[in-house]
Amino acid sequence: MNKIEIPDAEFRQRIRNTQQEMLREGLDLLLCFANEAEPQFVRYYSDYWPSFELAGVLIPVGGTPLLLIGPESGTFAGSVSRIPDIRKLLVLRESSEPEYPGAKLDTFEGVIREAMEGAPLRAFGIAGYSLIPHIVFADLAAAVEKLGGSAPVRADDLVSRLRAKKSSNEIACMREAYRITGVAMKKVLDNIHVGMTENEVKGIAMAEIFAQGGEGEAYPFWILTGQGSNQAISRCRGKVIQPGDIVQLQIGARYAGYAATMGRPVVMGEASPEQRALINAGYSAQKAILETARPGVNAKAVSDAHYAVLKELGFDGHILYGPCHGTGLMEGEYPWIESNSDYLLEKDMTFCTCVYLGDNKNKVGIRVEDGFLITEEGALSLSDYRRELIEIQ
Amino acid sequence: MNKIEIPDAEFRQRIRNTQQEMLREGLDLLLCFANEAEPQFVRYYSDYWPSFELAGVLIPVGGTPLLLIGPESGTFAGSVSRIPDIRKLLVLRESSEPEYPGAKLDTFEGVIREAMEGAPLRAFGIAGYSLIPHIVFADLAAAVEKLGGSAPVRADDLVSRLRAKKSSNEIACMREAYRITGVAMKKVLDNIHVGMTENEVKGIAMAEIFAQGGEGEAYPFWILTGQGSNQAISRCRGKVIQPGDIVQLQIGARYAGYAATMGRPVVMGEASPEQRALINAGYSAQKAILETARPGVNAKAVSDAHYAVLKELGFDGHILYGPCHGTGLMEGEYPWIESNSDYLLEKDMTFCTCVYLGDNKNKVGIRVEDGFLITEEGALSLSDYRRELIEIQ
Repeated sequence: MNKIEIPDAEFRQRIRNTQQEMLREGLDLLLCFANEAEPQFVRYYSDYWPSFELAGVLIPVGGTPLLLIGPESGTFAGSVSRIPDIRKLLVLRESSEPEYPGAKLDTFEGVIREAMEGAPLRAFGIAGYSLIPHIVFADLAAAVEKLGGSAPVRADDLVSRLRAKKSSNEIACMREAYRITGVAMKKVLDNIHVGMTENEVKGIAMAEIFAQGGEGEAYPFWILTGQGSNQAISRCRGKVIQPGDIVQLQIGARYAGYAATMGRPVVMGEASPEQRALINAGYSAQKAILETARPGVNAKAVSDAHYAVLKELGFDGHILYGPCHGTGLMEGEYPWIESNSDYLLEKDMTFCTCVYLGDNKNKVGIRVEDGFLITEEGALSLSDYRRELIEIQ
Repeated sequence: MNKIEIPDAEFRQRIRNTQQEMLREGLDLLLCFANEAEPQFVRYYSDYWPSFELAGVLIPVGGTPLLLIGPESGTFAGSVSRIPDIRKLLVLRESSEPEYPGAKLDTFEGVIREAMEGAPLRAFGIAGYSLIPHIVFADLAAAVEKLGGSAPVRADDLVSRLRAKKSSNEIACMREAYRITGVAMKKVLDNIHVGMTENEVKGIAMAEIFAQGGEGEAYPFWILTGQGSNQAISRCRGKVIQPGDIVQLQIGARYAGYAATMGRPVVMGEASPEQRALINAGYSAQKAILETARPGVNAKAVSDAHYAVLKELGFDGHILYGPCHGTGLMEGEYPWIESNSDYLLEKDMTFCTCVYLGDNKNKVGIRVEDGFLITEEGALSLSDYRRELIEIQ
């Protein structure tokens, strides 16, 4: 069996596709930026994801790209990067700012000169614009100015458009991430019991993700039990699971760079009528999303379908945002599906049903989340394990 | 038994100490900034650590601080923050940039006005300056200018100085993080065997960290086996452990915000003379560090002692950096101990012996790492479990 991964040729094709878009938009040079928590724009082109340090991929409109890393990641980057040419910059060091006395390091000016190979530098773009630290931006902008370029512009859209529709290899990686996540979810459901802490439950999922070949968690996922679980984003709190609690299980593995996520509410015992109604509303809203999403449908219609079901069931006051976001190298990425969205869904786009319902009166929240792929036939779920009322007896 | 944690009173004292330093340095307002991977400057004041979104703590030289969060973290922040006043800003949203139609959100201009309570804003500082994204900086700088303040200045030193010396509560939290890490290391040593992947070993450590009450990993820690383990910073590669490999075990738990770390090289079988010499050099260099570090000693002397031992043993060509860095809310934080350091060690500072030796010819690397506390009697190890040649038979 072949390893499920993105082949080198596809990484090279991504560079070529990007250079075509750069040509169309009149960009001479593009920096794709990443940090430890948000590797997406660098991993897409190089398969490298930094730890501690920062990273970039520098793509000239013609010629070959450079991977830019911090001073300590040379061997690490060399062992995983699909871009052979790697340069170390002091400004990409870790935030505790060691000085590396005696180390031989490059600068933005040097690597931009190298990437441009004598071609003139005019328009310069940054993808991952919202991530780039001010000090890196300032260092970079000074180098670009010195070399005759104009002020860097935001170029996230150029890359995000290319990333929004997934290739068959990307879909295979995402399916593997969802397979691992499903196995981890089953392990959790087989082992969760009253008296455990939220953190212990997370540990069970983490061990299974690593045992199944996952790279780790796709995002800082959480388990929340009982009161105070009405949280759209959270971290485990160490709370002990009590009889009768709804437990919000929110887990997701990363595989070959690709993120998966599953959200399931479980009841520790027999569900009360209120618990049953809340959980039923979540699955009903999810069903409406999956029945509406298909190629050519406006994203807004998906949000409207979600809202209509919740309004009918009396849970429209429980919505905080959403109900869907793009997914791929990050659990949540461009584009979102919100009530003000206005674009058409296309084949091979991937989303999550991010149905979060917060009952702020009783301080309880649930999330029903699965990934799905837009196919010609409609929404195809990447995970549908136990999409039902789950009672742990 | 009381829970090991930083009490509310100490969080309030940190604010007061910071306001005193601001007064001394002539700062009217300070923004402490954090992201998902680097929560330190915000967790220090609020105990909140963001996920997905960004965060800040806004401290006026007089008056009360505000915790600034993104649009989705209200319940999460409310449940953990030691700062009662919390405000949501759109600019602190996640990087996929949802628009939250209809949500009521604050702005930097609004929260700065609120924090200043009518007092004049002149000098404005940022701690976590190397972390703040350019777009957040630009939004902030525009608000500060509109309100009559001068351009934001870097104020990391002000906070880092306060953080460098640890209180007894902080030391208790760090000891607990090291206790959890030691238990996880024992679990790994009891279970590691030929045929496991690096990732599986990491999963064993992660499950134990969560089971012991840890919040998770202190940093993206790694296990590296055999060839290509000459990496100062890395992530697990999924490689299978082979007989005769040196395995670089690098693990660390986070507890109550505080980081621990332990590095141990283990040999899968009987160590060869070369393996024995490399590992011995690591422990010898560590011993020299621990025997040199004490109050009043120049940091450079610690680096010199480390270097002298490695030179004598013939391993001075294996050094990449270091040999120590401060530690606390981050595994690596201000200040570093490097060959060009020039400051005196003080009681209650905490460091890691970050002894990394890379044998780039044979492509093998080891790291011997433990935390230590500077006491009047000298360096006190926070972890010393099995500081010896470990052979797994």
